[in-house]
Amino acid sequence: MTESNTRRGFPVEEFEQRAQKAQDLLRDKGISALLVCTEPEVRYLTGFHTPFWQSPTRPWFVILPISGKPIAIIPSIGETSMRETWVEDIRTWSSPNPVDEGISLLSNTLKEVLKLDSKTSDQSLKVGLPMGNETHLRMPLNDFEQLMKNLQPHVFVDATEIVKSLRCIKSEREISKISKICGIVSEGFASLPNLLNIGMTEREAFHSFRLKLLELGADDVPYLVGATGPGFSDIIKQPSDRIIEPGDLVMFDTGSTYDGYFSDFDRNMAFHFTTDEAKSAYEIVWKATEAALKVALPGNTTSDLWKVMGSVLEAESERNDSVGRFGHGLGMQVTEWPSNTRNDETVLTEGMVLTVEPNLSWGDGYIMVHEENFVVRSDGAELLSKRASQELEIIN
Amino acid sequence: MTESNTRRGFPVEEFEQRAQKAQDLLRDKGISALLVCTEPEVRYLTGFHTPFWQSPTRPWFVILPISGKPIAIIPSIGETSMRETWVEDIRTWSSPNPVDEGISLLSNTLKEVLKLDSKTSDQSLKVGLPMGNETHLRMPLNDFEQLMKNLQPHVFVDATEIVKSLRCIKSEREISKISKICGIVSEGFASLPNLLNIGMTEREAFHSFRLKLLELGADDVPYLVGATGPGFSDIIKQPSDRIIEPGDLVMFDTGSTYDGYFSDFDRNMAFHFTTDEAKSAYEIVWKATEAALKVALPGNTTSDLWKVMGSVLEAESERNDSVGRFGHGLGMQVTEWPSNTRNDETVLTEGMVLTVEPNLSWGDGYIMVHEENFVVRSDGAELLSKRASQELEIIN
Repeated sequence: MTESNTRRGFPVEEFEQRAQKAQDLLRDKGISALLVCTEPEVRYLTGFHTPFWQSPTRPWFVILPISGKPIAIIPSIGETSMRETWVEDIRTWSSPNPVDEGISLLSNTLKEVLKLDSKTSDQSLKVGLPMGNETHLRMPLNDFEQLMKNLQPHVFVDATEIVKSLRCIKSEREISKISKICGIVSEGFASLPNLLNIGMTEREAFHSFRLKLLELGADDVPYLVGATGPGFSDIIKQPSDRIIEPGDLVMFDTGSTYDGYFSDFDRNMAFHFTTDEAKSAYEIVWKATEAALKVALPGNTTSDLWKVMGSVLEAESERNDSVGRFGHGLGMQVTEWPSNTRNDETVLTEGMVLTVEPNLSWGDGYIMVHEENFVVRSDGAELLSKRASQELEIIN
Repeated sequence: MTESNTRRGFPVEEFEQRAQKAQDLLRDKGISALLVCTEPEVRYLTGFHTPFWQSPTRPWFVILPISGKPIAIIPSIGETSMRETWVEDIRTWSSPNPVDEGISLLSNTLKEVLKLDSKTSDQSLKVGLPMGNETHLRMPLNDFEQLMKNLQPHVFVDATEIVKSLRCIKSEREISKISKICGIVSEGFASLPNLLNIGMTEREAFHSFRLKLLELGADDVPYLVGATGPGFSDIIKQPSDRIIEPGDLVMFDTGSTYDGYFSDFDRNMAFHFTTDEAKSAYEIVWKATEAALKVALPGNTTSDLWKVMGSVLEAESERNDSVGRFGHGLGMQVTEWPSNTRNDETVLTEGMVLTVEPNLSWGDGYIMVHEENFVVRSDGAELLSKRASQELEIIN
C-alpha cells in the first residue's frame, strides 16, 4: 500500500483536466454547454461526494460552460459541502419546493451561460445532456418538459458519447483508488476459508463477509450478492436462511468502495468436497478469463475480449447468454461503459479499467461466473484483483 | 423483538392488496395501466429485491394492468430472482443491447395490455407513469422518446399521485420492518459513549459506528453522514481525518436498513464538556420535536407539524431554511413523500411513517438537527426510534 493509495479526494488539477477535456469535446461537437444531473457525473466534474443522493426528493444540477469552471445549481442543504470543492459559482434554492424545484434557477443560469457563446439573441444553441444507453434523467419528467420550454430557442442534444469517453479512461489517481479497494477485497476473499463454515446460514455468511471487508478497510460494501448450494442460477441474489452443507458451492460477488471508487469481482469456493462437473465448469471460466487478459491490449476492442472468452467457453461447454456480456467498465459505479459484447467494439485504451466476467451454463440449469478487474496498460492488462486460483478452492 | 419482527419478505396477500389498491386508483382516474421503472416502485409491486439496481446499464420495467398481476419486462439476468416473487408473466431480453434495450418488448407488452381495456383499435388510452416531484425516469431519455412513438395513439400521463398515495401508508408488515431497524439503530446510538473517544479521527468514528450497526443486526448502512467539531454547518458530510477533541460535538445521521426498509434519525452528543449555547440549541430542537409528536394525529397535516416546530424554534432562536423541511416520509427509501413543509398540507393518516426533523441556526453559522421516527396511529404518534434524551448527552 503506497502513500498515494491512501490519499482522499483529488487535487484541483484533476478537475481542471476533466473540465478541459470535456470542453474540448463540446467544442468539437458544436455544443455550447453540458448539463448533468446524476451522481457520478456531478461528482466527476465537481468532486461533490455524499450519500445524500439516496434521497430522491431533491434534484442537483451542474452546468459545464464552454470555458471556465462548472456552475452548481443545487438545493441549499448541499451548499456547505459544495463549497469544499473547486466550484466557485454555486447557486441554491430552498428545496423541497414542488412548485419550482430549481427549474427557474437552472433555466436562467443556462440562458446566461449560453449568452456568452451566442452571436445573436435568436440563435438556437445546443446544450448537451446524456440521453443514451446507461444514462438516466435524475429529475422529474414534468420538470424537464418545463425546462425545455424555458430554454427555447435553445435545445438539448445527446451528450452520452462525451461523458462516456471522459469517464472510460481513468487517471492514475482514479486507478490507485480502484486498486486499493481491489486489494482490500482480494484480502477479504482470501479470508473466506477462515470465516465460513458448514452449518452457517447464507445470511450469516453474507454478514461475516461484509463485516470482514469493512474491517479490512473498505469504506462501504454497497453491492454484495451471492449464493450457496450445489449450484445456483441466480447470480444477483440476496441471502436466505439456507444452511450451508458439505459439498455446497459458495459464490460471493461484491462491489465494495474506497473513496467513492468500486471494485467488482466474485469468487467461487466449495465446502469440504465438490463434483468433477463443478471443478470443470470453474476451470473453463478461469481459462476464458486468462484468454481475455492476454488480449487486453490497446488497439484491440471489447468485442475481441468477448470473442476470445466465447471461444474458450464454446470449445468446452455451453455459453450462457442470460448475463448479456462478459464484463464491463468499472470506476465510480459498480458497472460503467463499455460492455464486453459481440457488437460493442470499444477500442481498448490505456487507462481503461475493466472487468472480464465470463459465465457458462452447467449442471442442472446452474450458472458459473468468474470475474477479475484490470487496467489497460501499454503492454496489456495489469490486474487490480489478485488472480483467483486455477482450481476451485476447497474450504475444509 | 417479536417473531413477526424478524420475518423476511412479504406473503403474497401483501402484494395482492397493493395491486388491488393501485388498480382501484387507476380506474378512478381513467388510466388503463401503470408503468414503473424505479427500484422502490418495482419492489413495491413485485417484491423483487436486489442491490443490482446500482448498475446503471440495464433498465427494468413493470406494468400493472387494470386487473390481474403485474407483468415484469426485465433483462434475462434477473429472471431467476423475479421467478421467486408472486409475478407469473415475466418477459425478458438479453441485456445489454443498446440497439433495443427492451423497448420493443415493452412497447408490445403495453399494447397487448391496453387492448384488453379498449373498445376500438384507434382509441387513445392512458398509461400512468410517475412524472412528478421526487420521481425519476430510470431509462435513457432517447428510449423513452422511442417508447412514446411506439405507443401511439396511446399516451403517458402522470401517475405520481397514485404511487405516492400507495407508498405513503404503510402496512403493519412494513411498519414492523421499519420498527426493527429503528430499534437496532437506537441501540447503536446508545453504544456511542462506549465506542467513541477523543483522539479518534472522524473517519475512525464513522467506521466503528458502521461496524456496530451491522453487528447489532442492520442488514446494511447505506446512508451515514456526520460531523465533529465545536459545531458544523454541513449536515450531509462524509468523514475527514479531523481528530476529535474535548469539547467537540458529534452528530451522526444514519439511514440503515432491515429487509429493504430504512430508519432515518440522528443523534448529537458532546465529548467531556460543552457550551451553554450548544446545550440550549439542543434543547430547543428537542422541544420542537416534542411539540410535533404531540400534534401528529390523523386529520392534522404535515404543515401542522411544520408550524408547531417552527413556532418553538422561532420563539427561542433563529429558524434555518437551508434544509427546506422539518422531516419527511420514511420506508423503502431513506426519504419519501410527504414533506413537513409550510405548504405540503398532506393529511396525516393512520399507517403513515414519518420523521420529524427540526433544525436551527446557532453559534458561528452552525446547524443543529434533531430527528425521530414514528408511525401515525389513531391516537397519535407511536415512536419507532427510542426518544433522545432531553439534555445533550456528554461522552466522558
